[in-house]
Formats: sequence, C-alpha cells, structure tokens
Amino acid sequence: MFDDPQLLSAQVGVVLDVLGTFVFAVSGGLVAARARLDVFGFVVLALAAGCAGGVVRDLLIGDTPPAAITDWRYAAACVVAGLGVFALGQQSVRVTDGLRVVDAVGLGIFAVAGTVKSLEAGLGDAASIGLGVLTAIGGGIVRDLLSGTVPVVLRADIYAVAAAAGAFALVLAIHLGQPMWLAAIGGAAVTTTLRLAAIHFAWQAPRQRETSP
Amino acid sequence: MFDDPQLLSAQVGVVLDVLGTFVFAVSGGLVAARARLDVFGFVVLALAAGCAGGVVRDLLIGDTPPAAITDWRYAAACVVAGLGVFALGQQSVRVTDGLRVVDAVGLGIFAVAGTVKSLEAGLGDAASIGLGVLTAIGGGIVRDLLSGTVPVVLRADIYAVAAAAGAFALVLAIHLGQPMWLAAIGGAAVTTTLRLAAIHFAWQAPRQRETSP
Amino acid sequence: MFDDPQLLSAQVGVVLDVLGTFVFAVSGGLVAARARLDVFGFVVLALAAGCAGGVVRDLLIGDTPPAAITDWRYAAACVVAGLGVFALGQQSVRVTDGLRVVDAVGLGIFAVAGTVKSLEAGLGDAASIGLGVLTAIGGGIVRDLLSGTVPVVLRADIYAVAAAAGAFALVLAIHLGQPMWLAAIGGAAVTTTLRLAAIHFAWQAPRQRETSP
Repeated sequence: MFDDPQLLSAQVGVVLDVLGTFVFAVSGGLVAARARLDVFGFVVLALAAGCAGGVVRDLLIGDTPPAAITDWRYAAACVVAGLGVFALGQQSVRVTDGLRVVDAVGLGIFAVAGTVKSLEAGLGDAASIGLGVLTAIGGGIVRDLLSGTVPVVLRADIYAVAAAAGAFALVLAIHLGQPMWLAAIGGAAVTTTLRLAAIHFAWQAPRQRETSP
Repeated sequence: MFDDPQLLSAQVGVVLDVLGTFVFAVSGGLVAARARLDVFGFVVLALAAGCAGGVVRDLLIGDTPPAAITDWRYAAACVVAGLGVFALGQQSVRVTDGLRVVDAVGLGIFAVAGTVKSLEAGLGDAASIGLGVLTAIGGGIVRDLLSGTVPVVLRADIYAVAAAAGAFALVLAIHLGQPMWLAAIGGAAVTTTLRLAAIHFAWQAPRQRETSP
Repeated sequence: MFDDPQLLSAQVGVVLDVLGTFVFAVSGGLVAARARLDVFGFVVLALAAGCAGGVVRDLLIGDTPPAAITDWRYAAACVVAGLGVFALGQQSVRVTDGLRVVDAVGLGIFAVAGTVKSLEAGLGDAASIGLGVLTAIGGGIVRDLLSGTVPVVLRADIYAVAAAAGAFALVLAIHLGQPMWLAAIGGAAVTTTLRLAAIHFAWQAPRQRETSP
C-alpha cells in the first residue's frame, strides 16, 4: 500500500504531529479550565500547548515558516480541542488525573514526531533525539509558563527522561530495520508507558543527599 | 507621490513596525515603573516589550537576522521610550488606565504590521493573520512573563480576538482593492477600538458553566 | 602558531562558547539545588541555562540547526555540570555567593562569545554587541523563568549593562588592531569585573524619583 518509504515517513510525521498537537491542545484547555479562564483563554492556551513544541523544533531545524503556521490543520486541531474542553463545563477539571494522562500521551506522540521530523531533515541520531525531547516538552513548558506555574518538566520526577527513552527506542528500532510506522508506535508507547508508570507507582528520581553542616 | 506599490507597502510596514515598537516599549516602561525597577530595568523591559513580537514574527517567517537586530531604529525607539517613561517619575504609574490604552494602541499597530510583513513574505491570508496576531501579542507576553505576571492575553477578555479582527479587516480591505496604507490604518483602528471598547464596557467573554456535581 | 586568523577566530568562538555553556550550566545546577529538584531537574536546568543563550543567538543569526543541537560537546558540558553540582550535595547551596560569581563569569564569556560569532556571521558592530548581550542574558532568563523567579536581568542593578560594556570593549579592541583572542579575554574580563564590582560594592542604578501627589 505504501510503496514509497520517503512518502510514508512524511505521512507518519504529519499524522503524528497533528495528533500530538490535538492531545497537547486538550491539556492546554484543561489548564485553562483549572484557571477558570474565559473561552478565548481556552483557545489561546490550547494553541500554545499544541503548537509551541513543533514551532520550536521547526525553528531549530531551520524549516520556516513552521508547519503549524502554514498548515491550517494544526490551528484547527487546537481550536477544536480548546472549544471542546470548554464545552464540557467545569466537570472537566473534576477528572483529577485527566490532565496528567493526556499530557503523557501527548509527550509520547511528540517525542517520536519530533525525532522523525529531525531525522528527515538530515540531522544525526543524537541531535534528532534531543529535538524530539524538546518538541515533546516545549508545549507543556509554554502552557505552564503562560498560566504562571513552574513547568511540569521540573516538577515531575520522570518526564524529559521518558521522552528521551521513547525517542531513543524509535532510533534504535529504525537501525534494527523496523518500518517507520512500527518504530514510531513503539517509541510513543515507550514514552507514554514510562510516564504513566512513573505517575502510578510514584517513582522518585534521586535527590541530593543532605550533608552535615 | 507613491507610484511603486511594492515600495509603498514596504514603507508602510517599516513605519508601522517602528511605531508599534515605540508604543509597546512605552508599555514596557510603565510595567517597569509599577515594579519599581532601576533605570536599566526600564530599558530592558522596553526593549523586550517593543521588539519581542517582531523578532518572533521574523524568526517564524525565516527573515533572519530580524530587523529589530539589524536596524538601529528599533532599539533606539525602545531606549527612548524606556528612558522617557523613567524621566516622568513615579507619576507615570498614577495614570491608572495609561498602560491599558497604550497597550491597546500597540496591539492595533502590531496586528497590521505583522500581517503586512507576512503577506509581503508570500504567506497565505490565514497564516498572515495568525502571524499578525502573534506579532501583536508577543511583546506583551514577554513583557509580562519577565515581570512575573500572567500575560495580559490570558487575563483580558477580548485581546487576541481584537488583534485577529484587525488583521482580518486588513486582509479583507486589500482583497476589496483598497490601498495598503488605508487598509493598514483601518485594520489598526478596528483592533484598537475593539480592545478599548472591551475595556470601557467591561465586555465579558463566555465562561464555563458550572455543572451540578 | 595560529597563522590563519579566520581559523583562530572560529576556534576562539567555539572554546568560549563551550566554556560559557559549562559555567552557565553550573549556575542552572545551583538554582536546581536551591529549588531542591531531583537529579533530572538538575540536568534540565543545566541544559536550559547553558544552551538557551547560544540557541537564541544562532536562531537570530539564522545559523540553524544551532551548534548546541548538532555539536555534542554543548550538551555534554551541561550534563557534566548538572550532575557535578548534584553530586556536591546540599552544601552547594550553602556557598551563598557561589551562584552570583558563577553567573558573572558566564555573563562575561557569553557576552564575547555571542559578539564574536555575530561578527563572524557578517553582522555590523552594533548588531553584534546587541546579540552578544542577548547571548549573555538569555541563559539566565530561561533558567529563572523555568524556576519561577523574576529573571536576574531585571532584579540586578548592573547586569545587561555589564554585558554590553564587555561586548563593546571587544569590538573596540578589534578595531584597534588587537588579536581576536586578546580582545575576547579583555572583553570577558570587563564584563565579569564590572558585574562582580557591582555586587561587591552594591552599586545602585538610578531609580525613579518620587513625585509629589
């Protein structure tokens, strides 16, 4: 069905990108609900959370203007997500763990989407993994900064590391000869599973030992 | 007088850009006055508020280095604005609504300046309106983030929407065959009037309905 | 020993860049220690503080992908710095003035590194000084924003001005025919000395006079 690996890779990239954008935009809407913003605040935070990671990645690759600006599907996904969460009413904040789960899924999708796009742009493995992580954490950072809270990447114990693990798994799978779509699904699953496990089991990363005065 | 429409368009763009930079830089100075910063803090916030929106727009268009870096008039407008507000003394903060009015005027100028420059760069109508909005809200976001407050775009009821309305009016006027300078003035007027009306009449955007538990 | 001035200039630039990255990354680790983050938080803040200034400069010059992404030495310097501060234990925060001294040294190195790279990219003197200042203050701004505090550039009395003075001294020395390496050391010394003197003597920049009501 997909005979051209180049084309397939590009298609996987765009589908992942729009999907990750939508999921992170939902997280932006949930933060807006918690902060009791008006309907425009929902849309602004959805756009920021959904598009910031991809825009930063495209800027760093030098792929300007970024896809999130020129391709209407990104903004549309964000507006739909923001208005959708708004329409749910205040019950949306009652889903206590909803934000964290949505954020974990978006983290996985964007980690692989960022890595795939960077590889396509001709960057090396390490740089592509780095840009995948940046794509994955960028939206959440901007969302949290705008709403006046310390970004989740600094508050959570296993966050950027989960994104890096999924991006690494993707690159490894490609080197082992797996098709792009399988490597992408696998990588996203690694990140999201690791992040959800860290939340569920309350994994603690090491902290500095106290030293006697 | 202006026979070359290309040249006129570029001239309108630069004049708007420097004017918007100055107006937003004044808003940066007023925030510095409120936060009781020293004279360098006035200049830093004036530069950030005045230049951030245009720099982000130029990065997204791929027009590097940004005009705000290479053209001394932008930095000069910011320094003059910052030092000017500083020289006014603490009475500058007593002008209670001053910041909001200045901010509304800057919003209008930057919404059309960003849209004009994006159109000139060959972007489509929708993308140009989007970049116009980003140019308009970018300076205020950076100004507010640096000074440790939630950005006005999330606090105010009608803000990004006012910028979008003016950018849309500009594009519409051009499609209706109006000259660039008239379309620009009209678009800026739409944004600023809408924003000031929203402040004056305390228009409320819809908020999430409470749902029974 | 160095016969090719072009090559020497590039070498001075990279060495300064990696050195400044390491020093600012240490400051990121110290902020993480103060905020009692986990080990990954140390690495994230070290990467942000160490790389943000240079990444922003490269984006503004149009040199994408930025060196901090494609050259593993930048990320390695940050990870080593972050883990190193982590390993020191909580005593690292007890060194009360440590953060400010480290920050002042990084400010000096990055002010000249940013100016040198901008001059190499063909920008004019004023634009290069501006980008040098932005490179120098960028890492600290991102570090402080992420950790939820008002950036040091707004809190400190002599900060951006110290960076500008060193960048100006560098450009002046080059115009006076000094070799690049000497101009770079001199410029960095001007910035760091000025900043440390401002801290030590508690120099106060002028503040707005109170006006009678």
